[in-house]
Amino acid sequence: MSFSPLVDELIESLRCLPGVGSKSAQRMALSLLEGSRAGASRLSASIADAVENISLCKSCRTYSESEECDLCKDSERDASLLCVVESPADLLAIEQSHHFNGLYFVLSGSLSPLDGRGPHEIGIPNLVDRVESLGVKEIILATNPTIEGEATAHYIADVLTGKGVLMTRLAHGIPLGGSLGYVDVGTLSHAFSGRKPLISE
Amino acid sequence: MSFSPLVDELIESLRCLPGVGSKSAQRMALSLLEGSRAGASRLSASIADAVENISLCKSCRTYSESEECDLCKDSERDASLLCVVESPADLLAIEQSHHFNGLYFVLSGSLSPLDGRGPHEIGIPNLVDRVESLGVKEIILATNPTIEGEATAHYIADVLTGKGVLMTRLAHGIPLGGSLGYVDVGTLSHAFSGRKPLISE
Repeated sequence: MSFSPLVDELIESLRCLPGVGSKSAQRMALSLLEGSRAGASRLSASIADAVENISLCKSCRTYSESEECDLCKDSERDASLLCVVESPADLLAIEQSHHFNGLYFVLSGSLSPLDGRGPHEIGIPNLVDRVESLGVKEIILATNPTIEGEATAHYIADVLTGKGVLMTRLAHGIPLGGSLGYVDVGTLSHAFSGRKPLISE
Repeated sequence: MSFSPLVDELIESLRCLPGVGSKSAQRMALSLLEGSRAGASRLSASIADAVENISLCKSCRTYSESEECDLCKDSERDASLLCVVESPADLLAIEQSHHFNGLYFVLSGSLSPLDGRGPHEIGIPNLVDRVESLGVKEIILATNPTIEGEATAHYIADVLTGKGVLMTRLAHGIPLGGSLGYVDVGTLSHAFSGRKPLISE
């Protein structure tokens, strides 16, 4: 089927988006062509602009169009707290919770030697430099609670031992609004071992 | 939250896609920025190209980058059969079924006087011209089975009465793989009134 090679090309190129199969890509392509097309032009321009200008912030290695990102430049943030995450998406999620006012360091994923991701590939030398130059007091290792994420957190803790920095890990337990019956065994055992007194005297 | 105005703009402009909310737009933006970015550049270029060059085919009024679309130019298709649909998406769905080898005419939606869509707005005069110039023998009115779609089909049938053209409507009934218990009342009554003998002698 084809009534226009350009429409086919548009549908095909939309499939590079995550979670977009052929049916959604087709729906998106036809919706972009409908109506005023101003949104489509804006989308095309902003993708081209982002591809051209966005690289990694030299300090925290998140996406940024300037040499240093807005978060690192912000003098109101607490430079003694550094949160280490695996990806810019994790950074965004933490920022959206409005609960953390320190700085970040974004690894390029987690350690996975079989996939060729060693300490150098994910940016651990840059992390060590950053910790030393900032004079950080606490590092929050917010890598994901997966095997690779845990291994990465332990590796970083080993590397930074002896630098007089407190290293912490985010609490694991039952998510808010979660139901005990649906929580997996690993999470439940973490929740038990991390239990807290209800009334602290 | 914001670490880069360009990333924010990219997320915001992705929201013009159908079915994309803020969380999906964020996921898409970060996925476009990851890795080689070749897919992102291709997407940007194909959207710009489509917006610039795609207009309506002068014969069937579907999307096309040339004056006449590939379907209308195809001499192997049966020009005595004309299928009238409401949108290019409907045309694509029919083409993908590989069951129809005639030509198409794409209306700009269905008749809806309250929304300012009269016969002129949806292109019925062009349809009449097309029917006369092609020498069509059968018109399949494949507008949607909604109130507006039915009204549009009946209006077209009225306008073209007396031109010696057979006018047909797609069969309505239980969809393949559907379960009787979940079929709505209207579909079920259509299925009863349109029932067929199992063994035709």
